[in-house]
Amino acid sequence: MSLYNYSTKTFTINGRTYSPPNAPTAVICIDGCADEYLSTSMAHGCMPNCLRLSAEGYRGMVRGALPSFTNVNNCAVVTGLPPSETGIGGNFIIDHETGEEVMTNSSKYLRKPTILAEASKSGRKVAMVTAKDKLRELLTKDMHGIAFSSEKAAEATLEVNGIENVEKLIGAAPPIYSGEASLYVLRAGVDLIRRGISDFCYLTLTDFMQHKYAPSAPESLEFYSGIDRYIGLLMDLGVVIGITADHGMNAKCLADGSPNVIFLESELRKEFGDGIQVICPITDPYVVHHGALGSAVTVYLQDILLRDSIADWLIRHDGITEVYNREIAAIKLQLPSDRIGDLFVLSGRDVVLGRSPEYHDLTMLEDTLRSHGGRYEEMVPMLLSRKLNCNYSAKASADPRNFDIFDFVCNGGN
Amino acid sequence: MSLYNYSTKTFTINGRTYSPPNAPTAVICIDGCADEYLSTSMAHGCMPNCLRLSAEGYRGMVRGALPSFTNVNNCAVVTGLPPSETGIGGNFIIDHETGEEVMTNSSKYLRKPTILAEASKSGRKVAMVTAKDKLRELLTKDMHGIAFSSEKAAEATLEVNGIENVEKLIGAAPPIYSGEASLYVLRAGVDLIRRGISDFCYLTLTDFMQHKYAPSAPESLEFYSGIDRYIGLLMDLGVVIGITADHGMNAKCLADGSPNVIFLESELRKEFGDGIQVICPITDPYVVHHGALGSAVTVYLQDILLRDSIADWLIRHDGITEVYNREIAAIKLQLPSDRIGDLFVLSGRDVVLGRSPEYHDLTMLEDTLRSHGGRYEEMVPMLLSRKLNCNYSAKASADPRNFDIFDFVCNGGN
Repeated sequence: MSLYNYSTKTFTINGRTYSPPNAPTAVICIDGCADEYLSTSMAHGCMPNCLRLSAEGYRGMVRGALPSFTNVNNCAVVTGLPPSETGIGGNFIIDHETGEEVMTNSSKYLRKPTILAEASKSGRKVAMVTAKDKLRELLTKDMHGIAFSSEKAAEATLEVNGIENVEKLIGAAPPIYSGEASLYVLRAGVDLIRRGISDFCYLTLTDFMQHKYAPSAPESLEFYSGIDRYIGLLMDLGVVIGITADHGMNAKCLADGSPNVIFLESELRKEFGDGIQVICPITDPYVVHHGALGSAVTVYLQDILLRDSIADWLIRHDGITEVYNREIAAIKLQLPSDRIGDLFVLSGRDVVLGRSPEYHDLTMLEDTLRSHGGRYEEMVPMLLSRKLNCNYSAKASADPRNFDIFDFVCNGGN
Repeated sequence: MSLYNYSTKTFTINGRTYSPPNAPTAVICIDGCADEYLSTSMAHGCMPNCLRLSAEGYRGMVRGALPSFTNVNNCAVVTGLPPSETGIGGNFIIDHETGEEVMTNSSKYLRKPTILAEASKSGRKVAMVTAKDKLRELLTKDMHGIAFSSEKAAEATLEVNGIENVEKLIGAAPPIYSGEASLYVLRAGVDLIRRGISDFCYLTLTDFMQHKYAPSAPESLEFYSGIDRYIGLLMDLGVVIGITADHGMNAKCLADGSPNVIFLESELRKEFGDGIQVICPITDPYVVHHGALGSAVTVYLQDILLRDSIADWLIRHDGITEVYNREIAAIKLQLPSDRIGDLFVLSGRDVVLGRSPEYHDLTMLEDTLRSHGGRYEEMVPMLLSRKLNCNYSAKASADPRNFDIFDFVCNGGN
C-alpha cells in the first residue's frame, strides 16, 4: 500500500492512451547503454538490484530509432513516436526553411506534443531531469512541472525550471564531463519521489562514460554500480520503473587505436566534384565525447542527377553498410524527409563517417573513439520492474521500440 | 598443472595461424542462442557457471554471418571464413551446376578445408559432436577423429564416426526434437575430454528449444540450467572454453499469434508475372522448428531486366528491411555469388519471408513461430573462459565475428 494516492486518470496523446500506475513512476534513459554494459556489470556482481529487477519484472531488447543518436531517441521516447513524426532525425540538421545548419536543441523543432506534458495535465506531478542541459527545453515542450539538468542545476529557477535551490535539495552538481553528471540525475529522481515532489519522472543520463570506457573497464563497472544503487533506492520506494537507452555504443578504432573514419565529404568531392555537402547529425555541444564522428551521415547534392551513381559508389565502399535515397530513408528509417539530405548513409560496427579531416578536431578526443549512430547501435535493452501482462508480453516479443517505454510502463503491468 | 600434455603445435589454415592451448579445448555453438537467452537465464539464477565464466574470462557480442542460418554459420565457424569463401550461403540453395534445389548437408559443397581437420593433423585429438546429423559429414571434411550426432549416436561406427558404442559410453541418445538432444552433445564433450579420448572439441547444438520457447519460458530456463551444468563440468576439468551461436532467434508473429509471413513468390508473381522463383535458404530436414520460414530469401528472375524495378518494389514493402542485387549481396553480405539468386532479401525482427502459402506446411509448427535468418538475428554472444590478451581485447571491441571463435580460443588467451 502506498502512502499517497497517485492520479491514475488515463490520458491520450499521439494516438496512444496511457493508464499511469497508482504508484510513483520513473522512466530512465541510460544514454549510450549498449546491452553489454548491463551484462558485463551484472557478471561482475555490480548490478544486484537490476539483476533482481530483471527476474521479478522483465529484461529484453528493444529497437531504437535510427540514426541512433541522443536527440532523435529522446524525442521519440517522450512522444512515443518515430523521428518521421517528431521531426527530430538528428542532433544537427539543415533547417530546410532557412537553409542553415542548426542543432535541434529547441522544442521549436519538435513537431509533436509530449507524453510528459500530457501526464502533467492529467494530474501527475511530472519531473524531467537530464544530465545535458541541451535536452531540457526540447523534451518538456508545454510541460507544467519540474525540468532541470545536472549541468545547470545551480541556475534552476522556479520560473524556468519549476524548482529552485536544487543544490540545497539534492547536493552540489557535478561537472558535465563525468559519470557523476548521470548519477546526479538519478539521485534527483530518488529525492523528488521520496519527498513527494514528483510522482512521474523521466530521468535521462549522459553517455560520457560509455564514450570513454568499454563495458569491462573498472571505471565503467564502478559507474554501473552507482546506477544500480539508485535503482535499488527507487525499488525500495515502490517506484514502477522502466529502463531503456537512446542508443548503444561501439569502439570505432583501427588496430593501432586511432579512429576508424571515412571522411566522406572529402572522398565524395574528390570523386564527384564540389557540389556535395555531408552533414554529421551526431554533432552537438559536447565535443570531447566523439569529435562529431558517428555511424550515420546525410549527404546533400547540388546535382540531383548524380544521386544514383553516388549511391552505387557509396554502397561499394568498404565500411559503409547501408545507403538510402531521401524517399526510401523516410520510409525504411522512419525519418522526416524535409530534414535529411538526398542520401542517408550508415556505417559498420567499428566505422564512423566524417566530413573532412579539417572539420573534426580529433585532438579533443580524450580516449580511443567509441561512438554510435548506425544499425549496430540500434538495439538497446529494456528493463521493467513489473511482470508484463499477456498483451504486452506478446508485444515485447514482437518488434517493440525504445519509444514504447512509457506505454510498457503505464499499460504493460499485471 | 594438467595430467596430460596436449599438442601445442601451431597450425595454419585458411590464412590464419592457430596456437592451441596446452589444455583440453572446447568450442561450443549454442544453436539459436540470442543473447537474451543468456541474460534472462542468468537473471533467474539458472547459469551460475556461465556468470562466473563471464567475469573470469570474457562476455561480449560478435557478428555472425548472413543469412543468419545454421549451415551458413557452422561452416563459417569451422573454417574461420565468411560464406563468400565457404560457399555455404544457405541450408538450401540452387546448385548452379545442376540447376537443382539442394540441401547443403554435404561437404562436397564446402569450398574450404576446416580448422578441425587441420587441428587433427597437427596432433590434437579432435571430436566434433552435433545434435543434428545433417551437420556431421559437412563439418568434418577430411578430419581424422571422432564425429557423431545425438540424432544418430546409436548408429556410430569406428569406420564412419571414429567411435562406436556411443550409447554405452555416454548414455542412451535422446530424440532429436528435444532439449536433451543438445544436452547430450555437451555430455559427450565432457565424457570424451574426461576420458582423454578427445582434447579439442567442437560441440554444436540444435535450436529446437529456442524455436519453441522464449527466453523467460520455464522450459527455456530449465534447458539453459542444463547447459550451464555441463559448462560447469568443463570448467572443473580445466577446459579452455569458447561459446558462441550460429544465429539469434526472434518471435515472428502477429498479435493473434499466427505467423507474420510475407509469401514473396506469390506476391511477386501477382505483380511481375510467373518468371520469378523464391528460394528459402532456411529449408532443412527438421520441419517442426520453423516450417521453412525465415527472415531471408533469395529471388531468381527469368527476366533480368525486371531486376531493378522488382528491387524497388521490394524495398518499399512493409516488413522488408534490405534488398540487394547479386553483386552487392556478394560484397555487403559476403555471399557466394554463384549460389544466390538475382536478388537477396532480408526482413524485419518480427517478419518472415515465404514462398507461397502452399509451399509451407504451417500445420507442422508446434507453437507460435520463432525464427531467424535476417539482420536482427545476426548479433550473437561470445563467451571465453580466459581473459583476453591485449591484441585480442582490441579485436573483441572492433567488429569480431562468430567465426573468429577458434582464433579467440587458441590465440586470445593471456
